Amino acid sequence: MSGMRIGVLGTGTVGQTLGSKLLTVGHEVMLGSRNVDGQAAVGWDEAAGPHGSRGTFAQAAAFGELVVLAVPGTAALEALALVGPEPLAGKVLIDVTNPLVFAPDGQVTLDPVNTDSVGERVQRAYPAARVVKSLNTMAAPVMVTPSRVPGHHAVFVAGDDPSAKRETAQLLLTFGWPADSITDLGGIGAARGLEMLMPFWISMMRHLGHTDFNYSFPAAA
Amino acid sequence: MSGMRIGVLGTGTVGQTLGSKLLTVGHEVMLGSRNVDGQAAVGWDEAAGPHGSRGTFAQAAAFGELVVLAVPGTAALEALALVGPEPLAGKVLIDVTNPLVFAPDGQVTLDPVNTDSVGERVQRAYPAARVVKSLNTMAAPVMVTPSRVPGHHAVFVAGDDPSAKRETAQLLLTFGWPADSITDLGGIGAARGLEMLMPFWISMMRHLGHTDFNYSFPAAA
Repeated sequence: MSGMRIGVLGTGTVGQTLGSKLLTVGHEVMLGSRNVDGQAAVGWDEAAGPHGSRGTFAQAAAFGELVVLAVPGTAALEALALVGPEPLAGKVLIDVTNPLVFAPDGQVTLDPVNTDSVGERVQRAYPAARVVKSLNTMAAPVMVTPSRVPGHHAVFVAGDDPSAKRETAQLLLTFGWPADSITDLGGIGAARGLEMLMPFWISMMRHLGHTDFNYSFPAAA
Repeated sequence: MSGMRIGVLGTGTVGQTLGSKLLTVGHEVMLGSRNVDGQAAVGWDEAAGPHGSRGTFAQAAAFGELVVLAVPGTAALEALALVGPEPLAGKVLIDVTNPLVFAPDGQVTLDPVNTDSVGERVQRAYPAARVVKSLNTMAAPVMVTPSRVPGHHAVFVAGDDPSAKRETAQLLLTFGWPADSITDLGGIGAARGLEMLMPFWISMMRHLGHTDFNYSFPAAA
């Protein structure tokens, strides 16, 4: 699983980090953004070498045989509206977003939440895309370098298309995730619980004072 | 920390399991319910021996030097309204609830969620109670027998009163929780994230096929 063309939508820390890792493991990557000539896109592109490029959201989605959605969760549908259904049809769309809403008082809430999730909304809006929720439960550096966290810890996949989850798992293996760390939580409905981990994750981050942690699930045999 | 009088509000699985464990570790326990002569209360009382008794929510709260809130989260304020502020004033009130709402289609949602939590609501409604959110992140058998789950795993405390969290931690030690498993997540606001773990917990339960699991948090040093 190398030498794919992958479109990464989003030029924030998550998009840039995933884009760079995907280059490292041998893919061609186009980083998509609203503003192709913005500082983030240009900076990443200049450092990316011959296998990296930048484009609009629509260009990056069309470029990719597989597409990663790495915009803020609250902007996910708006970003995909600039792409439209055709460039996404039939493709694995890995949704790594969290719909965080930051209030002036420092409180963080989610929108949508509880009765819906970004993962489900994206799948409903683009039924021909093969949406997989993954990687949204940890900080960007841990996503691409799982060894930053010691011991056994988990990365989740959730989605309605089993083969899309298998392709996502293949990609995670190349990131360094051990096979037994990749945890299939079922259909895209599980995106709801995965996104709702975020308020707890923020409490844990404050408790530990850093983001190099992750979840593990000791369980009886 | 034995020989306390403890009121447990709620006769469901969680209330009965915690009540029985509290007897085992040497406390006097009154199990409080809406219906003192209901089957659950009578059955528990008959098996409880001389140190266990049953009463109304108000009687159990008045009886306890420490009170455990183990009703359904959606019924928490209603149950406490039958108690009133006086019997709770100054006492540690351990809130183990989750505000689960079960829809006919099997979907589970939370109410409150995202912008509020049961823990925060209870603390606001009873400002003289010393509310600690704890134990709501796992199945009842794991609460009282942490060794059901192998290895290191976590139990959380969150609340605005540090001494109330210390008393709760003391109680958890007597349940068999190792000191380094007891994780202080800060003020009662962290109850929000702890309650929002539940949809994910349900996905994990379905994934594993049982409830003998818990969370652990591998982290960089």
